[in-house]
Amino acid sequence: MATRTPFKIGVVAAGSPITRSVERQVTALVASAFPSGSLDIFFHPQCFETAGHFAGNDQRRTDSFLQVANDPCFHAVWFARGGYGACRLVGDILPALSAVAADKHYLGYSDAACILAALYKSGFPHIAHGPMPHDISRSGGEAAVMRALNFLTDPAFNEFELTASHNTKTAAFNISVLCHLLNTPFLPDLSDHILMLEDLSETAASIDGALCAITHDANVRRVAGIKLGRCPIDNSGGPKDQIGIEAPVPNGEGDAGAQEMVQHWCRIAGIKYLGRADIGHDVDNRVVPFGLKS
Amino acid sequence: MATRTPFKIGVVAAGSPITRSVERQVTALVASAFPSGSLDIFFHPQCFETAGHFAGNDQRRTDSFLQVANDPCFHAVWFARGGYGACRLVGDILPALSAVAADKHYLGYSDAACILAALYKSGFPHIAHGPMPHDISRSGGEAAVMRALNFLTDPAFNEFELTASHNTKTAAFNISVLCHLLNTPFLPDLSDHILMLEDLSETAASIDGALCAITHDANVRRVAGIKLGRCPIDNSGGPKDQIGIEAPVPNGEGDAGAQEMVQHWCRIAGIKYLGRADIGHDVDNRVVPFGLKS
Repeated sequence: MATRTPFKIGVVAAGSPITRSVERQVTALVASAFPSGSLDIFFHPQCFETAGHFAGNDQRRTDSFLQVANDPCFHAVWFARGGYGACRLVGDILPALSAVAADKHYLGYSDAACILAALYKSGFPHIAHGPMPHDISRSGGEAAVMRALNFLTDPAFNEFELTASHNTKTAAFNISVLCHLLNTPFLPDLSDHILMLEDLSETAASIDGALCAITHDANVRRVAGIKLGRCPIDNSGGPKDQIGIEAPVPNGEGDAGAQEMVQHWCRIAGIKYLGRADIGHDVDNRVVPFGLKS
Repeated sequence: MATRTPFKIGVVAAGSPITRSVERQVTALVASAFPSGSLDIFFHPQCFETAGHFAGNDQRRTDSFLQVANDPCFHAVWFARGGYGACRLVGDILPALSAVAADKHYLGYSDAACILAALYKSGFPHIAHGPMPHDISRSGGEAAVMRALNFLTDPAFNEFELTASHNTKTAAFNISVLCHLLNTPFLPDLSDHILMLEDLSETAASIDGALCAITHDANVRRVAGIKLGRCPIDNSGGPKDQIGIEAPVPNGEGDAGAQEMVQHWCRIAGIKYLGRADIGHDVDNRVVPFGLKS
């Protein structure tokens, strides 16, 4: 696909909206990094709309996603950001995808993995976890966005998560998102995959409970092993219902707490824990193909 | 059981700890409401211990629960509070319960439902959702605690949730806790039950995602219907990863937002939505038997 000029990326927001500032920054980065015009990026207007938490209501987000996915002029569908809301679209998206949709790249992470997982399960060959336009808002976020752009356009791209391989299947999920996908028809067969997990700012209670659910799942129990990406925990809320508790629970358990939890539940489930993964809600977030590295 | 004197209640904390202040207030209430000494309450010392978020480590909480459940002198096991941690005990508790354990009442809600659900699945006949000692910390909490004490001791008790019946099975769960239970071996058969759901201070994203998972579950799809208890939403955190978003997402969607979500996912799943239930993390929280009202 990298040989087609210009390479056209369509950005849609399946969950929460982004700002015009994100569009401006990403567009400027594209203009500066691809001065020959070899890359063209289109932000669907829906990315900036709001309906509660969402970038437009369910119907609007569904329609916008399908417009870009089913349009033969786009080579890649890039999720604008995560946030929340993709799980409300996926059931309506799948039956409405046309044949041209399968020939594109789909890139995103976090909440967007609801759709990435379903597309991977449907046999789409170019599905990957990786940075999104919204990541440019982070300090140093240009590096994350350039990683995504290079992944989509450069055959010599080499910033995959190190586990990614031509021989071993991989998949990457946000812990909360995967937990919510477990019982849906949208979770792909994870047999023999190295499963990478990350999360951001959830309480220890949420992460521990979600890992309990994830590692009890029969599909997940067939993985080759689990690796833990960055998973900073935010206990400022503590376990819910702190009424009458004089001393707040300790904060800042960070990655060590999350790693103990993953190791605990992997041990109970008989799943191999394979150490740390180089992914997370941050500018160092590496690209992880769903399936084999192509 | 109400005819045995004194009726002995053992309090254990499967998740988070309570304070000595809670013990003092509940003990004083028992002394004043049962002056004849017909009710005796024992707080296991483990209730006041701390290990991170937990009331003692996993082993300590498991051992303490089993000491009370397997001791023939107790007529009821009362969960001290929710918080978080019960899901780490249930796998070790179940095979270690003795025959006398099945003859007791078990009462609690929220995080404690991990164990309540597993005991109900094991055929224990006296499992109920209802107030816990920690509820005395709420404004007006004595009424909630008295409701629990009366449920355990008064054959004429009449503060069940109105759906509870001799003819229709019921069950009650915290939304997050049920989501985390879905894939475990501890979730009972919910066929033909009226399933009541409540939650506290989760974000709209967490509630919506959990409801997606819950309503996709084949077991849950066999329920007679779902009723929504109180479910105040706290979006102060918003969807995760608000970096670069100038305007915070709106707060205070409250119950209306949660009801829309339940109705949305019930509609997709073909589950009947049966309206509101009189349960929640509050002093009005009614008693819901797991199964038929006995």
